[in-house]
Amino acid sequence: MMTDEQRQHAIAVIQQALPALEWTLQPAKIKRLSRDFHWFSPLLTEQLAGKQADAVVRPRDEEELRQLVCACAQHQLPLTLRGSATGNYGQLVPLEGGLLVDMTGLNQIVALGNGTVRAQAGIRLADIETAARPTGWELRCMPSTYRLASLGGLYGGGFGGIGSINYGPLAAPGNVLSVKVMTVEPVPRVLTVPAPEALLLHHAYGTNGIILEVELALAPAHQWIERLDVFDDFADALNYANACVRSPGLVKRQVALLATPIADYFSHLKDRYRTGQHAVISLIAEESEGLCASLLPRHRGSNAIRQFSEEARTRNGSLMEYCWNHTTLHALKVDNTLTYLQTAFDPLRYPQQILQMEQHFAGEVMSHIEFLRDIEGNLTASGLQLVRYTTPERLNAIMQIFRDNDVKINNPHVLQVEDGKQGVIRPDVVAVKQSLDPAGLLNPGKLRGWALRDQLELDSNPLTRATRESPTT
Amino acid sequence: MMTDEQRQHAIAVIQQALPALEWTLQPAKIKRLSRDFHWFSPLLTEQLAGKQADAVVRPRDEEELRQLVCACAQHQLPLTLRGSATGNYGQLVPLEGGLLVDMTGLNQIVALGNGTVRAQAGIRLADIETAARPTGWELRCMPSTYRLASLGGLYGGGFGGIGSINYGPLAAPGNVLSVKVMTVEPVPRVLTVPAPEALLLHHAYGTNGIILEVELALAPAHQWIERLDVFDDFADALNYANACVRSPGLVKRQVALLATPIADYFSHLKDRYRTGQHAVISLIAEESEGLCASLLPRHRGSNAIRQFSEEARTRNGSLMEYCWNHTTLHALKVDNTLTYLQTAFDPLRYPQQILQMEQHFAGEVMSHIEFLRDIEGNLTASGLQLVRYTTPERLNAIMQIFRDNDVKINNPHVLQVEDGKQGVIRPDVVAVKQSLDPAGLLNPGKLRGWALRDQLELDSNPLTRATRESPTT
Repeated sequence: MMTDEQRQHAIAVIQQALPALEWTLQPAKIKRLSRDFHWFSPLLTEQLAGKQADAVVRPRDEEELRQLVCACAQHQLPLTLRGSATGNYGQLVPLEGGLLVDMTGLNQIVALGNGTVRAQAGIRLADIETAARPTGWELRCMPSTYRLASLGGLYGGGFGGIGSINYGPLAAPGNVLSVKVMTVEPVPRVLTVPAPEALLLHHAYGTNGIILEVELALAPAHQWIERLDVFDDFADALNYANACVRSPGLVKRQVALLATPIADYFSHLKDRYRTGQHAVISLIAEESEGLCASLLPRHRGSNAIRQFSEEARTRNGSLMEYCWNHTTLHALKVDNTLTYLQTAFDPLRYPQQILQMEQHFAGEVMSHIEFLRDIEGNLTASGLQLVRYTTPERLNAIMQIFRDNDVKINNPHVLQVEDGKQGVIRPDVVAVKQSLDPAGLLNPGKLRGWALRDQLELDSNPLTRATRESPTT
Repeated sequence: MMTDEQRQHAIAVIQQALPALEWTLQPAKIKRLSRDFHWFSPLLTEQLAGKQADAVVRPRDEEELRQLVCACAQHQLPLTLRGSATGNYGQLVPLEGGLLVDMTGLNQIVALGNGTVRAQAGIRLADIETAARPTGWELRCMPSTYRLASLGGLYGGGFGGIGSINYGPLAAPGNVLSVKVMTVEPVPRVLTVPAPEALLLHHAYGTNGIILEVELALAPAHQWIERLDVFDDFADALNYANACVRSPGLVKRQVALLATPIADYFSHLKDRYRTGQHAVISLIAEESEGLCASLLPRHRGSNAIRQFSEEARTRNGSLMEYCWNHTTLHALKVDNTLTYLQTAFDPLRYPQQILQMEQHFAGEVMSHIEFLRDIEGNLTASGLQLVRYTTPERLNAIMQIFRDNDVKINNPHVLQVEDGKQGVIRPDVVAVKQSLDPAGLLNPGKLRGWALRDQLELDSNPLTRATRESPTT
């Protein structure tokens, strides 16, 4: 690892060599830009305290990025890629300082048509939606932070979200078609990697390659109606949500179930329903909404909010921004002693498990359930439960109780890729890093497998189908 | 039951009263129009031998139909509705003679827009597709006979088919929005019945109400690519098909698996692949096809046919017409000693069951597997296996072996609604008949529950949400 002094020196040299780039050197600004939403986790807040970059650069095009990468490789300076910083795992927080590369300048749509889009990593997801919808298409899946979140950020550290009820997570075969990456070498190479190998760079926190562009398949756009329906009984709310989920003829983009008191945390909405009610937020295609109207009374629910998604988005009032980790954000704004979990229920018995956990943890863990298809197309549920935080020990004990009830935990309170969703050290992911970032300069410390690479059997050419862009110099 | 003489007399009187209607009275023509594809079943062929109408009428509009229904009700003459006669259960074959009402004159699209269509029962499904596609929509599900099959026929005796891999069967909540029906009474009423009650008239063989119009939700139209891929090993073909099915990011409209020698029966295609190969026919969205190309070699398959669906349809060469019961038709054209089954596999272990049954019946029962979502959104498989027919006893024994292996049989060799897919006598379906056809004139003999209506507890008003059209006289 470089010393502070060595890094400062390297940065000074690079800055002098590339003075035309957009540099940020003020300490307060660097500190701010080195944060994301990892403060959702009291554990990450503690572990990441004081971690930050030494400088931030915002390349305006691929050529500026290339110059920067070239310089970092020459000086062996760590670099970490930054999108819009809407993640909650500290993905972008540099553990070993170095350069923070703000990718939001690379924000162009490269190609749009035939149900696909190829765009630069720094583009905001909302901008893809805005460009695609007039052509009759929309994103297949996107986080609740789509207004700010970047494509590269979603790819490097995201999951899916809104739309995953149809298409599964971003990682499900068919959603990502290819990525364009830059290597971290003195003479950086640019490769196009088709799926499925492209997925080896997904959710690796930007440790094993610099994503320049992502090519995605799109979904046909629908006229969505956003609904918030309320229920006095949790089981009724669950059953209503699940009936929506399990009707293949009911076209939807999103179904979330929020146990009381979660909806009471929604300061801008809570006047529309009674305190203490359970809520279901859904996005339903216009042609399917009649079915909700007939399902709702059967489950003793009533409608509290109903709006056209298009119109709601125009005035920044979309209910999509009350789902997935926006739910957590709204709650934490009201009560900053809360934290959250990430859980995956069993496709064969998620309704029972959800009820059981809601009853078991009454008051301490609040059910926030998102319905989705898993990577094999099974309808199932995942949880972003809110937790009244007391101690790390209790938080870990709670997670263990979920595990003991066969609910999988994707721990969001850990720093390294492998300790969260990925679960294990994946030699193929590490091999990609060896191939694209041989000196290990990208986001050091985040990929646990890298430190153990000598003990792994690594494929020397893990991206066999990648094609190299001919150098443009 | 009326005698032959009584019926002849009634028809003569009605014909005299309504001479302007389009009557068919030539015996040969009546006989021909009284048939459908029930000859797929040697058992039905025998049971329905000699069954036919006494006359056929083709009303040109709702008013002509109303006059006819009014007359039938006055004379207590049985009437059976006929679409395009592409069914295979003898749905339209009159068991007790009477009038056969050819509905193909009522073939207008009433409303199209916002992802829904309302059309008259006699319209061909292909005509809905043709009208909807330029607006960016298509049918959610349709039989392989869509070129001829009528909307009312699909509703009265059909299932779903192409597209059910996404939307489930036609009966899945959300696919049908409402139906307009006419009662069989001296003064016929016209009612609009919203879903879910509308479904009480679905797959009842037209016994419990005259469907005038059906309102359907549509699917966004995609550019589909039709593929026929071939494999030397059945398990490879199964695994490839299932990988397509279970990738939520792979957008498809149809996936069928055909064990050898089924593809060899396809006279117009068989030069494109070797004899003895297993085939998978799929319709894949253009933006998803790259995934097939990467899945195929992994399962040791190769592509034999690839064509754009739009173009194939224009020249009447669509591979959709080799799926569902068109598969059976192509095989029977080559070998008329064959017959078929209808089976439903278990969503939790259909791949194992499919392999097991293919091995068990090698040579006698040929696996023709269709993948779909069931009514609860589970991905699963159903079979339209081809059978080398020997005796009724052996056919029944084969079906029993499937049942013994937990594969459900929807017997296509029986006459009555309840003995096939419906499985049991449904008092709500019978109650609809009592309400809309109080004298039991519609397609008599097909609804077993009707004869037992005195032993059932029938709701006197089963269509509470129906609205009545104000009389137009």
